[in-house]
Amino acid sequence: MVDILHRVGIQASSDAVFKALATREGLADWWTTDTQGESTVGGTLRFRFSADGREIGGFDMKVLELHPLKRVLWQVVDGPAEWVGTKIRFDLRQEGQYCIVLFQHQGWKEPVEFLHHCSTKWAIFLMSLKSLVETGKGRPSPDDVRIGDWH
Amino acid sequence: MVDILHRVGIQASSDAVFKALATREGLADWWTTDTQGESTVGGTLRFRFSADGREIGGFDMKVLELHPLKRVLWQVVDGPAEWVGTKIRFDLRQEGQYCIVLFQHQGWKEPVEFLHHCSTKWAIFLMSLKSLVETGKGRPSPDDVRIGDWH
Repeated sequence: MVDILHRVGIQASSDAVFKALATREGLADWWTTDTQGESTVGGTLRFRFSADGREIGGFDMKVLELHPLKRVLWQVVDGPAEWVGTKIRFDLRQEGQYCIVLFQHQGWKEPVEFLHHCSTKWAIFLMSLKSLVETGKGRPSPDDVRIGDWH
Repeated sequence: MVDILHRVGIQASSDAVFKALATREGLADWWTTDTQGESTVGGTLRFRFSADGREIGGFDMKVLELHPLKRVLWQVVDGPAEWVGTKIRFDLRQEGQYCIVLFQHQGWKEPVEFLHHCSTKWAIFLMSLKSLVETGKGRPSPDDVRIGDWH
């Protein structure tokens, strides 16, 4: 199994960061504007992405854990084959003026090229999360930062 | 062993990207302005970083491979304990108007929090590389994009 791991420090309260991770509205403001479903334990969130005016796919996530100010954990239940069954986890902790976010996308079967792409893309989206919470403005899809020919 | 993996697509020739990875001047323009040493096989490159006007550490890399237009491979010979002995590898290939860069930082002993940080930071620096080659301007240290409280 192979994991994607990241860390960002956001100059904000864990409360503000948790809201951006644990609510549909928050997620829509940094990951993809096309976020549907319910961010409740046992519920399913549906994320869809588009580029150049057309939908290019997305992911359905079952919400496994929502620990206020501490953790959000999802499992991918639909999407690209490489993603189905993997888990996405955000752990938060407050350190002075920073909320530290440890991110894991766990359980990839192989270190395929698509994993390399998703690893870079997650970093960019976590910077969008940081920007959203610190400045009020993220860069969710379809206005996300492009990192190459795949988008 | 744990690896950091990334992928970016740069709208440029592999020749231009290789120059940015295989020359001291190129590296100084996207990773850190304080790059010293010789980018020759068997040579050692010394990268130092600073923030807020003070040096905050760096890495010495032995150059193991320089395959024109294809690959650059280094091994860390001095720096933070977690980095020493690890390898950093850039594989290039041309796909139409894009040079695809597959990046690996191989051989971390444990998935420590510092690895999470370095994973995100590598993504940011690879975007600096992309910007340098596509626009002529990167964001090397000490003007690199900050991702949190560690810098």
